[in-house]
Amino acid sequence: MENFEFYNPTRIIFGKGKIRKAGPETIKLARKVLLVTGMGSVKRAGIFQQVADSLDKAGLEFIELEGVKPNPNVAKVREGIHLVREHNLEAVVALGGGSVMDTGKAVAAGACLDDGDVWDLFTGKKEIQKALPVITIPTLAASGSEMNGYMVITNEESDYKLATGSPHVYPRFSILDPTTTYSVPADHTAYGGVDAVCHLLEPYFNGPAPCTPVQDHLAEGLIMTILEATTAALENPRDYNTRATLMWGATLALCGLTKAGVGDHHFPVHLMEHALSAKYHVPHGAGLAALLPGWMSWYSLSAPDKVAQLGWRVWGIEAGDKAEGAKKAIKAFRSWLKEIRCPTCLRDLDVSPEDHQGLAENAFFQARIWGMDKEYTVERMKTILRFCQEE
Amino acid sequence: MENFEFYNPTRIIFGKGKIRKAGPETIKLARKVLLVTGMGSVKRAGIFQQVADSLDKAGLEFIELEGVKPNPNVAKVREGIHLVREHNLEAVVALGGGSVMDTGKAVAAGACLDDGDVWDLFTGKKEIQKALPVITIPTLAASGSEMNGYMVITNEESDYKLATGSPHVYPRFSILDPTTTYSVPADHTAYGGVDAVCHLLEPYFNGPAPCTPVQDHLAEGLIMTILEATTAALENPRDYNTRATLMWGATLALCGLTKAGVGDHHFPVHLMEHALSAKYHVPHGAGLAALLPGWMSWYSLSAPDKVAQLGWRVWGIEAGDKAEGAKKAIKAFRSWLKEIRCPTCLRDLDVSPEDHQGLAENAFFQARIWGMDKEYTVERMKTILRFCQEE
Repeated sequence: MENFEFYNPTRIIFGKGKIRKAGPETIKLARKVLLVTGMGSVKRAGIFQQVADSLDKAGLEFIELEGVKPNPNVAKVREGIHLVREHNLEAVVALGGGSVMDTGKAVAAGACLDDGDVWDLFTGKKEIQKALPVITIPTLAASGSEMNGYMVITNEESDYKLATGSPHVYPRFSILDPTTTYSVPADHTAYGGVDAVCHLLEPYFNGPAPCTPVQDHLAEGLIMTILEATTAALENPRDYNTRATLMWGATLALCGLTKAGVGDHHFPVHLMEHALSAKYHVPHGAGLAALLPGWMSWYSLSAPDKVAQLGWRVWGIEAGDKAEGAKKAIKAFRSWLKEIRCPTCLRDLDVSPEDHQGLAENAFFQARIWGMDKEYTVERMKTILRFCQEE
Repeated sequence: MENFEFYNPTRIIFGKGKIRKAGPETIKLARKVLLVTGMGSVKRAGIFQQVADSLDKAGLEFIELEGVKPNPNVAKVREGIHLVREHNLEAVVALGGGSVMDTGKAVAAGACLDDGDVWDLFTGKKEIQKALPVITIPTLAASGSEMNGYMVITNEESDYKLATGSPHVYPRFSILDPTTTYSVPADHTAYGGVDAVCHLLEPYFNGPAPCTPVQDHLAEGLIMTILEATTAALENPRDYNTRATLMWGATLALCGLTKAGVGDHHFPVHLMEHALSAKYHVPHGAGLAALLPGWMSWYSLSAPDKVAQLGWRVWGIEAGDKAEGAKKAIKAFRSWLKEIRCPTCLRDLDVSPEDHQGLAENAFFQARIWGMDKEYTVERMKTILRFCQEE
């Protein structure tokens, strides 16, 4: 096991009807807040009104930043920062999926920048020194943003989708009410499940397999849970326990637990997907689904044991040798992706081999910011993309 | 899944050589600290000197409270509180096993009591309103005290061993350096493993089995890890990865993760063991080992499926029906206890059936403090103890 630090101070308030806690809990931190929302689904589902009523009742004032799109862009973040400054807002409440939460975090950090632009926090030009308190109320089981210090923002002018992180943007608390996910459509339920599984698989298949039995068992347990719960949620979208399982599983998938101790944390699939969705505007989970099986095939060349271990522990796959076990594990994973109607290769997204160079360069640009450029060169990215092109 | 809140703000600094961080990290919180230690093993192993040097070098003053015994008693806590007040100490650094850490937490909370005695915090007469910052440096993989807000103290005058908890005593940070556990003798390595497994089994077998796939998979993963690592540590006490796995596994076993969502959390085995060790002064892990198989047999009468699930997922046990699966699971668990040379029933500890009444009453007294007395009456405790008497 490699040395590590683990710290996650986000308080989770989990359960049916807990959305009503939004006001009473937020008022402990601020009186005037920015309320960030997306493209209207929380309004149509009546969730927005419940939160607004709760904030009102607790005596909170709020200003709305609505219309955050999937693959959220920096222009919207700037708009939020402007509102915070104009109205002297004291905290940010983000109500929605990963895009909304990440926008909320970026506003919270950007509003505390004395000079420079918020995009500098993503390119590495500046560091996050402080942030307004962040509160999240996720309405999608996917990104894990509700219990970590990361955020991903797209700059539409430059075609870059970049991630950054800081302990300052850990949500002070997050309210996870599984009933808010009842109305998530089938495709986004599936993409959310894929995103969560990808958050577990990237540290699991991290460089030369380290000795990490604790982390392996935790990741495998969460993967089994999420595979099963995603399939079940598609069959019965309003089953409380299924939605609760998916929601808590997805949150834990990126809370830092399964990557603590695995060593330098590489996440090439996310980098390549960010390149993909910056350019093709595909949903994040769909992009990940198209990359994961190919990436696993590439990884199994150097560490077939670990892929075979996944196969054995998650699907009970027995095989003559490790390479065969790995192959069968990838096949089982691909079957799950098909079952939940996700793409399983780049061709499914109409990406052609000529696009690889551009995608690899974009991914490499991000790798440099994260200090992963020695491991993940343009050439290596192109190799992985070749594995992902066709089934 | 039941509604829950989860909050764990302890920062973990994990790894080889990390003990040197004691000074530089503590100085951020205090200048003068109480340094709590046990019966001398950390001094003999040279660990104390490393910590003392690190504190010195960082410019910290410290006063020692040494001689904390297993099943730590309230008299020692009072001594610590006296030292804190006399020297105006600002934080508590606990260096040792669960007893030392729990004593440190009790001192930190008791020193902030304006009136009344620290024992009142255990009997429920008073609540913990604040505490000095607590820092722990565990030297044993067992109690999980390094990442939770609990503590257990014995009152030798009254023969009661009581637990209490508060968010105020979560360690601000804990330094987990697996090399500090190299010198733990075989019996205490084994007892530590049993304690950690018990922390996982009690919420796992909690009342009528709730629908908790996330929690189940996490607990099963950690149980598998700890069973294996305990056996391995006995074979090769100085293997870093084994000790690291055991240490991190034991910490996660009682950090709140596996019990969040399982509903009202009952822990009858711990209550009965506290009765046992208050009276017979057996090591905590030995007492738990003597109780666990019998308690599992009792539990499997009402929920054989859950015990069989453990058998299938942890040991791969297939069986004709659930009752048979449960029986085989308990047998497998008992075999592990024997392999690591632990008792497996009360008779192994020279407890006789005549002692059950007193033990049950003592456990019931504790159950009342925790609001578990409706479920766990004296009669029920006696029934469970009967199951634990003989193999």
